[in-house]
Amino acid sequence: MSSETPIRFGVVGCADIARKVSRAITLAPNATLHAVGSRSIDKATAFAKANNFPPNAKIYGSYDAVLDDPDVDAVYVPLPTSLHIKWAVLAAQKKKHILLEKPVALNVAEFDKITEACESNGVQIMDGTMWMHHPRTAKMSEFLSDANRFGQLRTIHTVFTLAFDPEFLKKDIRVKPDLDAHGALGDAGWYCIRAILWANNYELPKTVVALRGPVLNEAGVILSCGASLHWEDGKVATFHCSFLSSLTMDITAIGTKGTLHVDGFVIPHQEKEAAFSAASESWFDELAISWVPPPSHHIVTTDLPQEALMVREFSRLVGAIKNGAKPEKKWPTLSRKTQIVIDAVKASIAKGFEAIDIAY
Amino acid sequence: MSSETPIRFGVVGCADIARKVSRAITLAPNATLHAVGSRSIDKATAFAKANNFPPNAKIYGSYDAVLDDPDVDAVYVPLPTSLHIKWAVLAAQKKKHILLEKPVALNVAEFDKITEACESNGVQIMDGTMWMHHPRTAKMSEFLSDANRFGQLRTIHTVFTLAFDPEFLKKDIRVKPDLDAHGALGDAGWYCIRAILWANNYELPKTVVALRGPVLNEAGVILSCGASLHWEDGKVATFHCSFLSSLTMDITAIGTKGTLHVDGFVIPHQEKEAAFSAASESWFDELAISWVPPPSHHIVTTDLPQEALMVREFSRLVGAIKNGAKPEKKWPTLSRKTQIVIDAVKASIAKGFEAIDIAY
Repeated sequence: MSSETPIRFGVVGCADIARKVSRAITLAPNATLHAVGSRSIDKATAFAKANNFPPNAKIYGSYDAVLDDPDVDAVYVPLPTSLHIKWAVLAAQKKKHILLEKPVALNVAEFDKITEACESNGVQIMDGTMWMHHPRTAKMSEFLSDANRFGQLRTIHTVFTLAFDPEFLKKDIRVKPDLDAHGALGDAGWYCIRAILWANNYELPKTVVALRGPVLNEAGVILSCGASLHWEDGKVATFHCSFLSSLTMDITAIGTKGTLHVDGFVIPHQEKEAAFSAASESWFDELAISWVPPPSHHIVTTDLPQEALMVREFSRLVGAIKNGAKPEKKWPTLSRKTQIVIDAVKASIAKGFEAIDIAY
Repeated sequence: MSSETPIRFGVVGCADIARKVSRAITLAPNATLHAVGSRSIDKATAFAKANNFPPNAKIYGSYDAVLDDPDVDAVYVPLPTSLHIKWAVLAAQKKKHILLEKPVALNVAEFDKITEACESNGVQIMDGTMWMHHPRTAKMSEFLSDANRFGQLRTIHTVFTLAFDPEFLKKDIRVKPDLDAHGALGDAGWYCIRAILWANNYELPKTVVALRGPVLNEAGVILSCGASLHWEDGKVATFHCSFLSSLTMDITAIGTKGTLHVDGFVIPHQEKEAAFSAASESWFDELAISWVPPPSHHIVTTDLPQEALMVREFSRLVGAIKNGAKPEKKWPTLSRKTQIVIDAVKASIAKGFEAIDIAY
């Protein structure tokens, strides 16, 4: 792998999150920053400088120019959600592999158009859900799939809340109906839903019911909401996402034999190490005064941060495609399932908290 | 206080939990084990012996005999829920103060009859929710009520699950409709609901909605369920309780500025020390790669276990009443509010997950 040419990235748009991903592209051993495009060439120039682009990187005053650069292998697209369909489809048509920020689309029908374009042009697509690539996630998966330590999943609760200041809540694209129409659900809720699916081996629920009391802004964009998800076998999941509450990122997954707790699942408290706790066949001592055994605490270290591991995995797949492999369908499948649940939560809110059956 | 005569307890029934509380009565400096009654005198004799009753303790072959003993100041009642109304009312009429196991009654109307009897006879009543008396709970309350560190509560999620073996699920009183008709809701759910009320300054929600997918046994007793609770100001709470899932006891309370996590809130992992974590105005570093500051971890130590602190507080109130004070209404008020929510969850399940308005 190390002897191969690194995958050359074009960054399409200078969103805040693109700074973190540009650093990740620099850190990933099989990727390199090749170009950046913005509607303003000045903004692109400043972005490249501030984010340690190589001296020979291309600076473009449009998104199209990035897609037209024959040396760009892959694009990173951090544009507002409403623009994904246009630019992701165009990128696919130009044979660029696509690392696409979440939420991937305004609804699953739009995302299906994006994946159709990717499939017919033979390009890889992956969404920017970084925590999937942390080695902690693999360790936690091992625990969840261990019939002796964890047993069968019964219930899971996930939370992603963050308290934006009132200024943000007036201006940010994530709360503008014409840009990121899903608000906190598409941004923070995306991770909650993905974590629930992850713990369920990506089996979609049968039914989704939004919880009462979502908070919407004046334009109708969700600032806070929750839902319960229900599977045929009786498993239940709940989640809560919000732009109005203190920073919290939790997964609590409870099985017949074990319990997983993780705090900071989306972004670990520290870059190089991440914690989780696991209880397995815990019970009480004789008089029910203490736990035997108590939960155990685990630390997983990583040399590369999760976002660089994401870029590395994406670039590995792109490299394999260059050598004749087919695109990996796992990643668009996960994006699609997450989007299906997002759509169902929105439908349930729109219908006064009715239960929405998932058809798939 | 230490110069006063200890409060003399009569234990009414030899339930498993009575072993833990008998030890607590022994440990509490202002309480003493005076009598135990069972329908079987052999059982009572064996119980007294196994649980270190003093040599001069009275052993009775009926519950009535305990209530008729003029030297008994207070009774501890761990009987099945359906028997609470009979024995608690009788105890009050005999001027015995009452430490009553939870759930306190089959419904709030029954509990109101118990409190009426207590009020008209001037006796104290307190339910057996031990964790309320742990010094950790006071520390966590300080955090939750700190406008700078925690801000305003926005959402709270609580869990109490434990995995009983199939044998238990066939035979235990907690799953018999004629004994403990509330099943996991009355047993584990009681704690979840109390924790939610505790974090809300005991303000009852406006609406309660059971989550779909409760698990009932053949007799219709709840083995697993959940609900969401909603307040007028938009606060949302969810909880999940179960007899079918691995041991878990969580509170996650999220405010505008801070987040509280506690694992093992009902029974701490260890007898003498208990942990919680608190995040306060956490945000991300420049590129959103780590948390600044990360949550802080707190350990609260205690010489006496929480159940002995409960007995001590109850006995202190009884001692004060002996010296002319009035019974403390806080405790029956908390029991009543918890029971109101239990009743609402059951009503919501019975009505196909309808939203139930709380009238109070």
